[in-house]
Amino acid sequence: MTVKKTLEELAVLVGGRVAGDGSVVITGAAGLEGAGPGDISFCASSKYARLLEATDAGAVIVRDGGAGDEGKGINLLLVENPMLAWTAILKELSPQPPPPPGVHPGAEVHPDAVFGRDVSIGANAFVDCGVRLGDGVVIMPGVYIGRDVRIGDGTVIYPNVSIREGTKIGKRVVIHCNSVIGGDGFGYVKVGSRHHKIPQVGIVRIGDDVEIGACVTVDRATTGETVIGRGTKIDNLVQFGHNVRIGEDAIIVAQVGIAGSTTVGNRVTLAGQAGVIDHIEIGDDTTVGAQSLVKNILPPKGVFTGYPALPHGEWLRAQSIFSKLPEMKKKLRELEKKVEALEGKGK
Amino acid sequence: MTVKKTLEELAVLVGGRVAGDGSVVITGAAGLEGAGPGDISFCASSKYARLLEATDAGAVIVRDGGAGDEGKGINLLLVENPMLAWTAILKELSPQPPPPPGVHPGAEVHPDAVFGRDVSIGANAFVDCGVRLGDGVVIMPGVYIGRDVRIGDGTVIYPNVSIREGTKIGKRVVIHCNSVIGGDGFGYVKVGSRHHKIPQVGIVRIGDDVEIGACVTVDRATTGETVIGRGTKIDNLVQFGHNVRIGEDAIIVAQVGIAGSTTVGNRVTLAGQAGVIDHIEIGDDTTVGAQSLVKNILPPKGVFTGYPALPHGEWLRAQSIFSKLPEMKKKLRELEKKVEALEGKGK
Amino acid sequence: MTVKKTLEELAVLVGGRVAGDGSVVITGAAGLEGAGPGDISFCASSKYARLLEATDAGAVIVRDGGAGDEGKGINLLLVENPMLAWTAILKELSPQPPPPPGVHPGAEVHPDAVFGRDVSIGANAFVDCGVRLGDGVVIMPGVYIGRDVRIGDGTVIYPNVSIREGTKIGKRVVIHCNSVIGGDGFGYVKVGSRHHKIPQVGIVRIGDDVEIGACVTVDRATTGETVIGRGTKIDNLVQFGHNVRIGEDAIIVAQVGIAGSTTVGNRVTLAGQAGVIDHIEIGDDTTVGAQSLVKNILPPKGVFTGYPALPHGEWLRAQSIFSKLPEMKKKLRELEKKVEALEGKGK
Repeated sequence: MTVKKTLEELAVLVGGRVAGDGSVVITGAAGLEGAGPGDISFCASSKYARLLEATDAGAVIVRDGGAGDEGKGINLLLVENPMLAWTAILKELSPQPPPPPGVHPGAEVHPDAVFGRDVSIGANAFVDCGVRLGDGVVIMPGVYIGRDVRIGDGTVIYPNVSIREGTKIGKRVVIHCNSVIGGDGFGYVKVGSRHHKIPQVGIVRIGDDVEIGACVTVDRATTGETVIGRGTKIDNLVQFGHNVRIGEDAIIVAQVGIAGSTTVGNRVTLAGQAGVIDHIEIGDDTTVGAQSLVKNILPPKGVFTGYPALPHGEWLRAQSIFSKLPEMKKKLRELEKKVEALEGKGK
Repeated sequence: MTVKKTLEELAVLVGGRVAGDGSVVITGAAGLEGAGPGDISFCASSKYARLLEATDAGAVIVRDGGAGDEGKGINLLLVENPMLAWTAILKELSPQPPPPPGVHPGAEVHPDAVFGRDVSIGANAFVDCGVRLGDGVVIMPGVYIGRDVRIGDGTVIYPNVSIREGTKIGKRVVIHCNSVIGGDGFGYVKVGSRHHKIPQVGIVRIGDDVEIGACVTVDRATTGETVIGRGTKIDNLVQFGHNVRIGEDAIIVAQVGIAGSTTVGNRVTLAGQAGVIDHIEIGDDTTVGAQSLVKNILPPKGVFTGYPALPHGEWLRAQSIFSKLPEMKKKLRELEKKVEALEGKGK
Repeated sequence: MTVKKTLEELAVLVGGRVAGDGSVVITGAAGLEGAGPGDISFCASSKYARLLEATDAGAVIVRDGGAGDEGKGINLLLVENPMLAWTAILKELSPQPPPPPGVHPGAEVHPDAVFGRDVSIGANAFVDCGVRLGDGVVIMPGVYIGRDVRIGDGTVIYPNVSIREGTKIGKRVVIHCNSVIGGDGFGYVKVGSRHHKIPQVGIVRIGDDVEIGACVTVDRATTGETVIGRGTKIDNLVQFGHNVRIGEDAIIVAQVGIAGSTTVGNRVTLAGQAGVIDHIEIGDDTTVGAQSLVKNILPPKGVFTGYPALPHGEWLRAQSIFSKLPEMKKKLRELEKKVEALEGKGK
């Protein structure tokens, strides 16, 4: 479905102003390099000035009061926050209509399940007894929803997701394809050399406005709850152990793993492939670097990197010397010889 | 479903004794901090004495002959092994009845498939020709079971799992949602710069009492078998390459990766995000730390950590110096100057 | 299905010659250690000479003009490229007939979808409107194919894969179970402390002859395309961020993660669990070691290892000293004392 808007109309939409031809018709969006005359693009930083001058885009979103890009022959849409305007315009140009409400005849829905208005259940989905779905919930094909799951208004569950019994999901949550919410936690008691399973009878609770990527696993609590706080955004292939508690507005990048009973604060960022051991805490507003391993409690508002994680500056200074170790070793050997020689002389 | 038991009844169940009021009614289980008057909790260690004194739990499981917690006004259930008692009581209070036996009308089952007694096949499951399922096997919705798969008595396959042709699974195995058993191994032969696929014609064999987490991938062998030994427990998002052989009663934590043709011994523990390269061996009873990379054969009964993995003590000593490298470098420079000065004097 | 071939027939198939009994009947293939009299095996290297002498295999593929293995009483199939012959013979002995063409009555296919000849759609698969499938495409049970997806001739999609709207897939591609192609990229704009989703309106394009493992996630582009180049082979549990571009004939091993907008050249190898940050480039023919973290642009034809990645030789030299740091520290302390003593004498 193609949407046509003039640059002027888009300016009104985002509360910006046009420099250049406001009547140009925009039908798509693209990066500066790939854009054509019907596309709008954006330039977030003066770093990309070269790309801006060379672009074929029909118009470019830039910061008002920024680099002074006017008058270069490019149609500009000047706004206070280019990324936010870009986001609004992408939504406008590529509307993604939700699937039509109703239960697909190929879905299996338990008669006890209770639905709000305008719920959509796709083909081959399975909804078990005691499930409650809020208004406008979308359950896509192949999704499994276990007994007594609650899902809030406007939440979208993408294909082939599995949501185990008792999970509680908030409003406007998005869960991407093939993720697993509420799988058993990894808990055993050892008797001799054998491992006996500890029943995992708790649940998972997911706050409003959370987004969860594809192939993510969020384990249910042993008892009580595993919690993902409101507004937290999770990338693909992330692992959450049982009884983990994630705060609000956190960013958890792809392939991160968080072990059981660990608490992660509000607005924390965990970069890709980072690992956090069990039973510790990461304070609010702290950032952990890619592939870092967190083995200790981390205070709020820090930046930590390394294996295991150190304060970022400390790690940078130590790491910068790592590749010079052979040189240091050589110098040390030379010094030893010199000192030996000096000691010989002194005798 | 709520189960009501008096503390005395639970004591009989686990062979323990009550100190306090044995008639208190228990309907749930929770951690010391979250527990209410109807809950039983447990206290594994005197470390948590403070939490024990502050808890609102109706009763607490503690070790008999332990910290002398009697007489503090808390109802205690004293047992030899608190974790084991906790496990038994969780199972008692939260019974998880298996789905009713029978084939859901929405399942697709090949007429050649052979079933034991009380098999349950969920909606939208697919069972191909030549499959044999033992007594009491549970196949949940959306599961794919390829041709000639064998599954032993009492095994449970959670939703959206894919089990490829020829896989052999033992008794009382549990495979959690969205895992893939028997996918092709990653093997190519290079001709010029192009990669030609080596057919992967072997299978996967999984022993009795194995548990496999969610989104785990176990590749089939090129020829022969990829093997997961009896009693081994596997967390989420773990990768097993073709022809890997895992021993019995091993613990493989989340996001571990084991490359092709590697052998892992009995009772080995691989902590989260650890990696093991191809064609090597890890001896029985050895432990590998989180995010470590194993690039060499490891002997039995060792503890190894690091990138790449070293004996744990050696790694700890070296790692403790890593953050002091800038200081060492500075000292080295100072020494060089001093020695130069001394050499000058000596002339 | 058992296939019977004489060793002579297999020699003709692969253009090799027999040393020993060409009439021996071969019905299977196995490694040297596990092979029996009906099996053919292969020996790629003189390293395995001991295994070759001890094998019970009915015949063994070896390199013609190699180690001079003739006359040891083992039937040999001598060829120029043993791995390639092994590949051809595995295919011959274990034919994997595609599922019969046709749409399973339990599949849900939109009437607007357009198919080539001999397409096979499995049970519980879902194919949305605007989808085009080439000749001989196989869609296995439980697969989700979103709106307007294009799939080229001869491509096979294994069970429970999810392919989101607009994805373009080439010819002879293989996608293994439970992978997700075209999930939303991980992009937000921060307003205050809250994250607002950037619509992900681009697509994923996958070239001809690509193979993608199980539980892999390939995110769609924000705008434009995420691209996997022709002939590239991808192992299990790998993550591709939005707008990533992978070249041709690359090898991406299990659990690798590549962050958004990064470009990876042709014939690059990324070993298991390696990570690559966003917005960088890796040159053609470069190799990155297991668990390495790439934080900078890498030139072509290099080998890089480490956290973060260094040129491999540099890393090896530095790493070899890491475990000797305690010794170095001790030597430094001794030198300091000696120099102090020398300075005292000099006064």
